[in-house]
Amino acid sequence: MDRVRGLFFDVFGTCVDWRSGVIREGRKLGVEGVDWPELADAWRGAYQPQLETVRSGVRPWTVLDVLHREALDGLLGSFGLDGLPEAERAELTLAWHRLDPWPDVVDGLQRLKRRFVVAPCSNGHIALVLDMAKRAGLPWDVILGAEIARAYKPAREAYLRSAAAAGLEPGEVMMVAAHAGDLVAAAGCGMRTAFVPRPGEHGPGGAAEEPPGVAVVARDFLELARVLGA
Amino acid sequence: MDRVRGLFFDVFGTCVDWRSGVIREGRKLGVEGVDWPELADAWRGAYQPQLETVRSGVRPWTVLDVLHREALDGLLGSFGLDGLPEAERAELTLAWHRLDPWPDVVDGLQRLKRRFVVAPCSNGHIALVLDMAKRAGLPWDVILGAEIARAYKPAREAYLRSAAAAGLEPGEVMMVAAHAGDLVAAAGCGMRTAFVPRPGEHGPGGAAEEPPGVAVVARDFLELARVLGA
Repeated sequence: MDRVRGLFFDVFGTCVDWRSGVIREGRKLGVEGVDWPELADAWRGAYQPQLETVRSGVRPWTVLDVLHREALDGLLGSFGLDGLPEAERAELTLAWHRLDPWPDVVDGLQRLKRRFVVAPCSNGHIALVLDMAKRAGLPWDVILGAEIARAYKPAREAYLRSAAAAGLEPGEVMMVAAHAGDLVAAAGCGMRTAFVPRPGEHGPGGAAEEPPGVAVVARDFLELARVLGA
Repeated sequence: MDRVRGLFFDVFGTCVDWRSGVIREGRKLGVEGVDWPELADAWRGAYQPQLETVRSGVRPWTVLDVLHREALDGLLGSFGLDGLPEAERAELTLAWHRLDPWPDVVDGLQRLKRRFVVAPCSNGHIALVLDMAKRAGLPWDVILGAEIARAYKPAREAYLRSAAAAGLEPGEVMMVAAHAGDLVAAAGCGMRTAFVPRPGEHGPGGAAEEPPGVAVVARDFLELARVLGA
């Protein structure tokens, strides 16, 4: 563990509450009778199948803004929103740039940053992660992830090229996520891993994922800072 | 000027004093009789011709660590250092990761960061700029520049791809540099420009470059923050 110099963070779900943010941005449109929680879940549900078209090579590298917009266009009809104008579709797609962090995240990252390089290793592109960070005060040292790597997690290249860009060996990196699949993939690349449960990710009454055996487990980023001596 | 949302910074010379840093790291090797100021100038002198081999397409994309090391290997003989061991050559090449900022830079960036995205748009690769930032406390929001763009300034792609990665139009960016050529190129891409003179860049008794007509001129980053209302 003493070799770890950089902490890489999953973002959607691990650092920020995507579901509440999307619901909030939807409601801002002021359209009556839309089930925004269900729309948020359906929107997020389109995500992995979309990424898979890029991971499998069926589709060339495409950033999340484009994928999010396509998925939204495909969903609106089912929610009585087929007539939503272009400007409002574009604005709603930016909901993913305006997500709030879980309460421990900003303070936790500030502490962790004193001892480690802290970097998002997200499937979000640079502009999205940057907008989110400026709005929410996430103190990243550098923005890594899918766009740097031109590969979507859990493809190995997403982790390995992010580490290489930061000048770090995989064994010098700890991946932090609320999702077992992300951590299993990072561990397969030689990274250390930390699991932080986020039971609220899928809404009230949801349960956190089970941590994979490979990972350090911390209740939140503040506990992670204590565990890592930061 | 009200459109500006992001400030892009040249790094070597504009934010950090490369010459003093390279001299200091050289002297740490403890070898007698080496003219380190002259070696630093000769090392930096190799830089533009090296970049030109990449800009012209003669050579594929290559990061500065590799170019710096090649130039160093070519110079050591002239300074009586042909016998310098591998480990010390590697260590000395990392001098470029360990450069100190000019005295106004950290405070100035902290102020500018409250109002703008602040990002290096340097020919240094991500790992170099990241190491430098962690050591010196440079509070970048995101690391842009040559590696993101796979192009060395003053090639247009270095500016335009950096802006695009940050989700900014060129007209929403102000390039900040101590070098007229950098600013003329950025202005040619549609960016606003600010010139900050760094008379110490080439050592004691040196003179700052003349600002190009296109640019706002500020004495240092603190004055730039005042001028920009940050």
